[in-house]
Amino acid sequence: MVSVAIMGHGVVGSGVAEILLTHKQKLFSSLGEEIYIKKVLDLREFPDSPIADRFTKDFEEIINDLEIRVVVEVMGGLNPAYTFVKRCLKAGKSVVTSNKELVAAHGAELLALAKEENVNFMFEASVGGGIPIIRPMNQCLVANNVREVAGILNGTTNFILTKMIEDGMQFEDALKLAQDLGFAERNPEADIEGHDACRKICILASLAYGKHVYPQSVHTEGITNITLEDVNFAEAFGYVIKLIGRVRKLDGGKIDIITAPMLVPFKSQLSNIDNEFNGIMVRGDCVGDVVFYGKGAGKLPTASAVVADIVDCCKHLKARRFLFWADGDGSNIIDYRDSVSAMYIRVSGDDAEVKAEKIFGEINTVADNGQLAIITSDMSYGEFESKCAALEGEGVKVLSAIRIGDI
Amino acid sequence: MVSVAIMGHGVVGSGVAEILLTHKQKLFSSLGEEIYIKKVLDLREFPDSPIADRFTKDFEEIINDLEIRVVVEVMGGLNPAYTFVKRCLKAGKSVVTSNKELVAAHGAELLALAKEENVNFMFEASVGGGIPIIRPMNQCLVANNVREVAGILNGTTNFILTKMIEDGMQFEDALKLAQDLGFAERNPEADIEGHDACRKICILASLAYGKHVYPQSVHTEGITNITLEDVNFAEAFGYVIKLIGRVRKLDGGKIDIITAPMLVPFKSQLSNIDNEFNGIMVRGDCVGDVVFYGKGAGKLPTASAVVADIVDCCKHLKARRFLFWADGDGSNIIDYRDSVSAMYIRVSGDDAEVKAEKIFGEINTVADNGQLAIITSDMSYGEFESKCAALEGEGVKVLSAIRIGDI
Repeated sequence: MVSVAIMGHGVVGSGVAEILLTHKQKLFSSLGEEIYIKKVLDLREFPDSPIADRFTKDFEEIINDLEIRVVVEVMGGLNPAYTFVKRCLKAGKSVVTSNKELVAAHGAELLALAKEENVNFMFEASVGGGIPIIRPMNQCLVANNVREVAGILNGTTNFILTKMIEDGMQFEDALKLAQDLGFAERNPEADIEGHDACRKICILASLAYGKHVYPQSVHTEGITNITLEDVNFAEAFGYVIKLIGRVRKLDGGKIDIITAPMLVPFKSQLSNIDNEFNGIMVRGDCVGDVVFYGKGAGKLPTASAVVADIVDCCKHLKARRFLFWADGDGSNIIDYRDSVSAMYIRVSGDDAEVKAEKIFGEINTVADNGQLAIITSDMSYGEFESKCAALEGEGVKVLSAIRIGDI
Repeated sequence: MVSVAIMGHGVVGSGVAEILLTHKQKLFSSLGEEIYIKKVLDLREFPDSPIADRFTKDFEEIINDLEIRVVVEVMGGLNPAYTFVKRCLKAGKSVVTSNKELVAAHGAELLALAKEENVNFMFEASVGGGIPIIRPMNQCLVANNVREVAGILNGTTNFILTKMIEDGMQFEDALKLAQDLGFAERNPEADIEGHDACRKICILASLAYGKHVYPQSVHTEGITNITLEDVNFAEAFGYVIKLIGRVRKLDGGKIDIITAPMLVPFKSQLSNIDNEFNGIMVRGDCVGDVVFYGKGAGKLPTASAVVADIVDCCKHLKARRFLFWADGDGSNIIDYRDSVSAMYIRVSGDDAEVKAEKIFGEINTVADNGQLAIITSDMSYGEFESKCAALEGEGVKVLSAIRIGDI
């Protein structure tokens, strides 16, 4: 029997407890021993829970219990999660978390601490909810130099964009629907401004390239400026608009990482990942493209990934699983203005096509309703900004600009 | 340093050697020690290989070399692969294979032998080539009762069907193109008759439900009877035709397993997995649907999965990874005539629609060019066969019949 504690009894935490209780036999047959929930930490009371007697409001009861070998952190937020997780690792307990904010902010430090204490720190659920991605990247693709990782990493924004694309809803209406359905929070900023997706691509980039990438090093754009005009022009060119977290390794060894809406070609496997689903493409030098798809959030999908980590920790109480990256200072990341891609812009003004061709060179265009949509050839974002300024100098107004995702 | 031997230097075997040599540093940084190819078994000579001096034609040199801890079987075929693998396991060496024929025919026996000898037997590359699937199912989805697994498991037939669907090619022409491009063998029977896909769904079913499923217990249909008429009618109904290996657990505890062409709805994630790509959907009771996509064959993609297994074996020389299923006698599998699905049929004859409605009840139909395509409601395959016989008794000729895949 392995005793575990769960810190947090919210959506994910209650799902973890539920799976551990309802799938006891299945888990026993895989692990060869029972996983026993000895303590649940929450400030609230849950008198109707079948394990109501094991709730505590006092973290010290967990940290001081020598029988508890694995602690599950599903409280969310940076504090007190960060302090608690550090203390658990230092006390020789393995830690499993679904907390992407924590891993993106302190992953390198916590991995180093786990290594020092010869315990495990696992976070499969922090990216892509129930979709297996951390373990496949770390184990199954170990023979590959990862060229690129690109993903739809936030279900809320993907739901909103899908409603705009499929049902012609305005952004605000789609956001409200997402809130009504429980896919978006009352304060949706972390989702719609891209911060959540950014944390996840930071975790994947750290894993793929071995150095911690902090969210503040990553240029991040949300989807609040996307309009139905953009959605329709994109379709006319053969693309859908998706919020993408992407990192790729450049020839010189540096990485190019960004979170931003992109025009994704219909033929891409990411183009038809719709609604609240997530999808992640990993491009390896041997395996080519592999794509992982599934529910990126939700009680049981996320808990499914947490429980897989718990089982792995229980199997490796005395051995460390090799999951590690070093700290990073951002020096391996190029400036986003040096990142090269083709661009989509939507403009209005007299003779816009002629003027744009003069400035951008070869372009593809679609005109509708007094506006012109343009797709340029590849250029750095810095060059693109200068050219947009030049275009505006000629009296053409740039109404929106979105990267073309070659994914 | 861990010494390994590779049995077979064909497409996959030479890819494995190539990755171990070219990705030495990457693998060292993951494993913490070097993987050294001590022997390569092949009857042919490869004087230009950088490891030409390590080739042998004599299996005894491998089995008797106590330094060799991991043996890679990439010869293909049942013999002598089966004998060699058994002897390696008995000699206390872990074995990695990409050989689906071997795993489908002898998996339970070889897993039991590995357990007895406290070594590992791994076969990630046997299903889906480079796509991570065995390890994700076994580890990442351990918290789930698997409801269903359905996949496009054979790249050759998927390439042929894609050419029929997208380019309107006839089956024979598409097969010839696949052969010319190297996607199909000169003798394509194992692919086009469904045997290869059947072996792979047998492996996934054995893994998901813990009892070996032998290919001869599985009703298997190939794609040789699919016509362009079927392709076009399917499209009119909102489906594409794919060769699907599928297993699902029924309420009574038995499993329903089949390999057959199916009409897959456009909205399914499997519907746009095209050309030589594979895709596998796993439906778990907690995680919902997850889909894995990538190249299901080819030198480096397959070798990528083999090398991941080699690394895992090298990490666990003294510990067994939990990968196991018991032998099976087919008693947990329902007769394919008891399997329930909606059906597509294409018929010709006077008053076909009226007669079909009388026999099948509620149906959807599309008529074209003197033929009628029908989609029925759900029924067992046995009932369907009786009703088809009744329809033919009324003078309506049934030209083709394909299952509807609710996946």
